[in-house]
Amino acid sequence: MADAKTTDRMEKTVSLCKRRGFIFQSSEIYGGINGFWDYGPLGAELKRNVKDLWWRTMVHDREDVVGLEATIIMHPQIWKASGHVDTFADLMRECPVCKKRYRADQVEPRSGRVYKCLGAAGTDAKGPSRIEFPFETIVPKGKPPIESGKERAKKFYSALKLSAAEPFGETISEEVSNSVDFCSDPTCGGKLSAARPFNLMFKTYVGPVADEENVAYLRPETAQAIFAQFKNVLETSRQKVPFGIAQVGKAFRNEVTPRNFTFRSREFEQMELEFFIRPDEAIEAIYGSVAKPGIGHPGEPQPNWGWEMWHKYWVEERVRFYESIGLPRTTLEEYWQKPEELAHYARATVDILFKFPFGTQELEGIAARSDFDLSQHERFSGNSMGVFDDELRAAWAKLDEGRKKELADRYSQARYKYLTKSGVALEPAAKEAKEDAEGLAKGQYIPHVIEPSAGVDRLILALICNAYAEDQAPDEKGSMESRVVLRFHPRIAPIKVAIFPLLKNRPELVSKAKQVRDLLRPLMTVFYDDGGAIGRRYRRQDEAGTPFGVTVDFDTLGEKGPELQDTVTLRERDSMKQERVKISELTRVLQEKLR
Amino acid sequence: MADAKTTDRMEKTVSLCKRRGFIFQSSEIYGGINGFWDYGPLGAELKRNVKDLWWRTMVHDREDVVGLEATIIMHPQIWKASGHVDTFADLMRECPVCKKRYRADQVEPRSGRVYKCLGAAGTDAKGPSRIEFPFETIVPKGKPPIESGKERAKKFYSALKLSAAEPFGETISEEVSNSVDFCSDPTCGGKLSAARPFNLMFKTYVGPVADEENVAYLRPETAQAIFAQFKNVLETSRQKVPFGIAQVGKAFRNEVTPRNFTFRSREFEQMELEFFIRPDEAIEAIYGSVAKPGIGHPGEPQPNWGWEMWHKYWVEERVRFYESIGLPRTTLEEYWQKPEELAHYARATVDILFKFPFGTQELEGIAARSDFDLSQHERFSGNSMGVFDDELRAAWAKLDEGRKKELADRYSQARYKYLTKSGVALEPAAKEAKEDAEGLAKGQYIPHVIEPSAGVDRLILALICNAYAEDQAPDEKGSMESRVVLRFHPRIAPIKVAIFPLLKNRPELVSKAKQVRDLLRPLMTVFYDDGGAIGRRYRRQDEAGTPFGVTVDFDTLGEKGPELQDTVTLRERDSMKQERVKISELTRVLQEKLR
Repeated sequence: MADAKTTDRMEKTVSLCKRRGFIFQSSEIYGGINGFWDYGPLGAELKRNVKDLWWRTMVHDREDVVGLEATIIMHPQIWKASGHVDTFADLMRECPVCKKRYRADQVEPRSGRVYKCLGAAGTDAKGPSRIEFPFETIVPKGKPPIESGKERAKKFYSALKLSAAEPFGETISEEVSNSVDFCSDPTCGGKLSAARPFNLMFKTYVGPVADEENVAYLRPETAQAIFAQFKNVLETSRQKVPFGIAQVGKAFRNEVTPRNFTFRSREFEQMELEFFIRPDEAIEAIYGSVAKPGIGHPGEPQPNWGWEMWHKYWVEERVRFYESIGLPRTTLEEYWQKPEELAHYARATVDILFKFPFGTQELEGIAARSDFDLSQHERFSGNSMGVFDDELRAAWAKLDEGRKKELADRYSQARYKYLTKSGVALEPAAKEAKEDAEGLAKGQYIPHVIEPSAGVDRLILALICNAYAEDQAPDEKGSMESRVVLRFHPRIAPIKVAIFPLLKNRPELVSKAKQVRDLLRPLMTVFYDDGGAIGRRYRRQDEAGTPFGVTVDFDTLGEKGPELQDTVTLRERDSMKQERVKISELTRVLQEKLR
Repeated sequence: MADAKTTDRMEKTVSLCKRRGFIFQSSEIYGGINGFWDYGPLGAELKRNVKDLWWRTMVHDREDVVGLEATIIMHPQIWKASGHVDTFADLMRECPVCKKRYRADQVEPRSGRVYKCLGAAGTDAKGPSRIEFPFETIVPKGKPPIESGKERAKKFYSALKLSAAEPFGETISEEVSNSVDFCSDPTCGGKLSAARPFNLMFKTYVGPVADEENVAYLRPETAQAIFAQFKNVLETSRQKVPFGIAQVGKAFRNEVTPRNFTFRSREFEQMELEFFIRPDEAIEAIYGSVAKPGIGHPGEPQPNWGWEMWHKYWVEERVRFYESIGLPRTTLEEYWQKPEELAHYARATVDILFKFPFGTQELEGIAARSDFDLSQHERFSGNSMGVFDDELRAAWAKLDEGRKKELADRYSQARYKYLTKSGVALEPAAKEAKEDAEGLAKGQYIPHVIEPSAGVDRLILALICNAYAEDQAPDEKGSMESRVVLRFHPRIAPIKVAIFPLLKNRPELVSKAKQVRDLLRPLMTVFYDDGGAIGRRYRRQDEAGTPFGVTVDFDTLGEKGPELQDTVTLRERDSMKQERVKISELTRVLQEKLR
């Protein structure tokens, strides 16, 4: 996947990010902190633009979506309900000697002699007792032991605050090759524990007492806050199902191996929409049938859409969004998860992938999550997450009995499946599922949800990778030199236009250029640069991805005749074409190009 | 301070925030989590507007400030350098029985009988041993003991996992009144420990091993990331001193007693600028003298400004900002910290206070922090935080010897003061201070900083409190009724304009109203509402703080003659005045009012 050429391209991109102030390593002066990245001046603007465009597209331009901004630390019970406390984990193996942990599937095989040390007496926290267990370490083949198995055993006991009441015994147990049972630290080699789940949520304590009662987590996703506040938003926003709640914000995952620059980091930002819809049975009761998706974008939302149409719609809308900010469809792939890959509650999940230099990887997942999330919070909080739908109630009353039974049975079966899969015993599950179907007949249900969930940081990385190009451009004397250019879509470019007086030491040029800068600044981000040769200044802005450059020269001052007076050179980054534009028309011309 | 009227006003404001979806309690369905608040749809938009305006004012509208977006979790050494690990703490006392902690200055006095229990033998983690210490609890005067001191002692031992090998002794030691030495939980009453510092940073662990090596903190302020990345930003942004770096983002403080709604919460957002300037000695060397502030705003920045002018400038700029978003100067107070209140490194600090219903409290602090922050990071990271200033180098060479000595001595003294106060021993401090002065002569120094640091959440609360008003408005039949209105400045209002078709069941009205909505939506946030009587719809928007309402009525359709055709009623929220505006002019009219 990652051949020399793509590795090289990735390295150049990373280097440009640092050099031009897009992305820095967090805490770099202290040696950095693995899995954390900061956005410098250009990166911060790029990220703002992308998040703003997402918010505009998902919230402001729509009638049916509202925003939310919830806290990162929430009640820990939310993560019980979501399943994160119990199942959001990697399998890890621990070395009892040096305490290092390894992803169970990433232990490097080792060969060598295994020293076994058979137990010792000690005193543990429950009082004096005799502890006996085999203690093994490996020493690589052909190398002298750095310290004997016995020494390591002593260290281990001492770390456990055990006092060895009897001398340690030592034997060489066996020779092994390619064993994945030993710590791969060359100065250690302890025998790894069995694989145990290691939760990926960052844990902290709220309030002055650090005990189990006060545990809290940094959210591993922004979605759950939306579910937890669903009723509050519904009741205060004058929305009714179908409608969505959008949120942009930080999330945290204590990844064991952060990698691929900012792609998989421990602190990242998400843009998530939870779009709440009627269950299909309600649509069928009201409209007779549920619309089925065909090829391509299904067009404007219609009342008879069930989850399949809404899911398809959001997949297409999201791809459109990526196209609108400069990721061509050819750089993207859609991956429809196979039935066996889906979580038990998921009806369908589509991943939108981008062709990164290091491989084709996920930018966003669009999942049809049934009524799982709200149902979980209803069960765990004891608060109703249901809505009342008077259209459904009225329509249901007019159905014939056979149809009523058919829809009620289907709804009841789905609820039964959810309840039993979520740990409710068969008998109460059957009772509750029946009650849920009776509720449906009265117009009550828990909304289903479609979730388009995008990662901001990986999108920024995709946009930078996609924009990165090297081509040839003329230098000061007209001979060609290679140039690095970020071909950002003007909508997302950190700086929209750079203003250059041709010469720094000609006050008329400088003063005119500053007038142009002040004219444009209220309308777009501008950068004024009077340093160095004009070609070098162009080159700097090419690397920053600035789509337009405006040069104030002697023509502007009218020195080559009145017809060019108060015109400027407008240079386009990608084509490097230059045109002459009147200052009085510059605002309009640029605003059109930036739309 | 908080009399019945202001309490009532605050309660009404809190209630409105919930009712209209500005602010919800975080995790409300799970009983909430103390000190955490979510922003609902209107609150999220309000907050976005305020943060955007801050960014526009502080970054985009200026030549000399760039942005940064750093991580919340950074290298823990940053918080050693900043002083937060050692000194960002409240003094707390702990109850050994129930483990509750109390702010040392907030323990409630208790009166009653004190039971003393004198020790027992037990086994601790280091093996069998005899532990003896007095154990005291208080039982309130006139009440029967809920459980005896002996029982509590047993519980205490059991909580420590100590087994009592000998029976507990019990005595009644004394009667006390108004003692602040006992736990105020009525079911407890253990004798509190001595006051110990409790760090207010939230702690977590990065990576799979939860040991001291992997401790990390959630940032308690956004400022430090700016200092840590100062050199990276300087080197990539084409800025030179004086210039600033701005950041908006979440910060976390594990407050012992969060209070006053969102004013003091545990998770909050900051808007911070660190504006880096030359030390006064450099200004004097270059310009002969340092400009001194007079009354009021000092105007456009000048090269001969020292820290006093820059500090004054930022105080005035920040007050201007608050005025520009609708907080009149009369609602604000400036508090200049007294010399004895300042930290040793601070030259001056001004707090901008707002008159909240619960008291006059800080919105923002503007501190002149000398070169303390960058100096600390230079010492702790071992990386230079200094800059080279060729103007200074050139100017210094032209100074006479007396002047050189005077400036070098003053600079050296300031450095010596910083170094010794920061724990460097006298001799090396003197040597280093001398070297620093020699560096100054060569054009090298660590920039000083002015820090305007604002709290977003408390500003949002101030804006809501300031906007809240009750007045009289005519109902449907023209008789006066009381109305609640949020008089937000149009710049920050979550919704700029509401569009109302007079009647929902007249397709021509609805279709025209939707045309108007689609006309305005690309330019501003709009809300379309066709539900209920027009008066009720106005009232709802008044409560949401929407400054303008546009009604499409029969006149719009031309039913009262062609001269009113394609005109709408534009209603202003505060005055409730209505004017007739042509649809073709609506965009221009509204954009002018929103500026």
